[in-house]
Amino acid sequence: MFENVRIILIRTTHPGNIGSVARAMKNMGFSRLYLVNPRTFPAEEASALAGSAGDILAQAIVTNSLEEAVADCHWVLGLSARERSIAWPSLEARNAATEIVKNLQENDRAQIAFVFGQEQSGLSNEELEKCHFQVIIPASPAYTSLNLAQALQIMTYELRMAFLSHLSHTKEKSENSEKNKQGSDEAEKATHAEMEGFYIQLGSLLRQIQFLGKDSPLLMTRLRRFFNRANPDKIELNILRGILTALQKGV
Amino acid sequence: MFENVRIILIRTTHPGNIGSVARAMKNMGFSRLYLVNPRTFPAEEASALAGSAGDILAQAIVTNSLEEAVADCHWVLGLSARERSIAWPSLEARNAATEIVKNLQENDRAQIAFVFGQEQSGLSNEELEKCHFQVIIPASPAYTSLNLAQALQIMTYELRMAFLSHLSHTKEKSENSEKNKQGSDEAEKATHAEMEGFYIQLGSLLRQIQFLGKDSPLLMTRLRRFFNRANPDKIELNILRGILTALQKGV
Repeated sequence: MFENVRIILIRTTHPGNIGSVARAMKNMGFSRLYLVNPRTFPAEEASALAGSAGDILAQAIVTNSLEEAVADCHWVLGLSARERSIAWPSLEARNAATEIVKNLQENDRAQIAFVFGQEQSGLSNEELEKCHFQVIIPASPAYTSLNLAQALQIMTYELRMAFLSHLSHTKEKSENSEKNKQGSDEAEKATHAEMEGFYIQLGSLLRQIQFLGKDSPLLMTRLRRFFNRANPDKIELNILRGILTALQKGV
Repeated sequence: MFENVRIILIRTTHPGNIGSVARAMKNMGFSRLYLVNPRTFPAEEASALAGSAGDILAQAIVTNSLEEAVADCHWVLGLSARERSIAWPSLEARNAATEIVKNLQENDRAQIAFVFGQEQSGLSNEELEKCHFQVIIPASPAYTSLNLAQALQIMTYELRMAFLSHLSHTKEKSENSEKNKQGSDEAEKATHAEMEGFYIQLGSLLRQIQFLGKDSPLLMTRLRRFFNRANPDKIELNILRGILTALQKGV
């Protein structure tokens, strides 16, 4: 799934940060690194800090513009702690991860970019305007500026967690549907109109036996709330209506 | 809440990592740093990488043993990716964060330590055995070894997220209890015994009108499942039993 996700670093000043980013990416299962106008690359310091992620540096794609790096992307998300005078649509990192994993699950051809600005200044307004969303890491108001590789680590970690949670839900779902196949009689829920039909019949019976009168305006409301909460399926509603019909004949 | 949480680094080799840890801590709202036998501290490199978190370095407590650093702690959690031959009780970082925040909420005097081993080797078995739990960051199996400051960043981020989620739940709860006070008629749920009384009466009525016979063994089960799911409160159950009584008189 993560082969559709690229990490883009813009005008990175310290090559060590590029190395740290590569390691952090590989730790979370990512591999596609784009570098827009890095100051120094390749660099020994980058390789030293990349640890066992030298392969990511070796395959990194260097471009001359953000434009070029995101050209084929369907979703572009820019990490930035700074609020803008014209607020950009924003998502917290965790929600962004959930959205992107959902998106990739629905469309395995979607191309996604996470963009990180220069270390000191972050994303410029112009760069952010190329993003669909600003992604915010909920940091302490006392010190919101995370180191580049740290921000990248949190973002990729959240993507990995969202992916793992998606996997376990998919597994659960298929296990549940297996269970349902074996021993269940899960039926479709009754529609709103079917419920209304039931309430009319119930009301009519209760008036017939004088249980429902003018002095009990709340009673039907309470019964509605109760049966709506139970949200019967079609089979259950048929049983209930069968009982009402039998009772109407009896009284 | 986070003043009860300390970060302990054991035998850190590179002073730069201590600086990066201080910054990552402050970014997430933490301040208490313990250093067990650091190779070089204080150090210029630490200060350079700490950014605006120089105060954390200035207040850092240096000790000669892990023992000393955790002496007054109620919970000690050790970050480690390595599986041990004798498996230690373990928690994923997110679950550990939730547990700790819950713990601090219940007992604001609890002292908590998160312990990080030496960069190359991580926590030794002897060090881990001083911890109540091993905390695991779900990294990619291809490269599980995170940089020290990155692991610290994820752990403190998860604690912060758990804390923020706790805050918003507390707020929600108090808003809901406000709502309930204003316009609710939430009643106590019916007990198991009260539900059984209802089922006996219902069964008796259904036999009376010959709706429930020997050819319908599943019918009562379905009705039980339906009414159990609705989980009526005492008022609702009284209404239902009132209806049954009125019907029994009528038929």
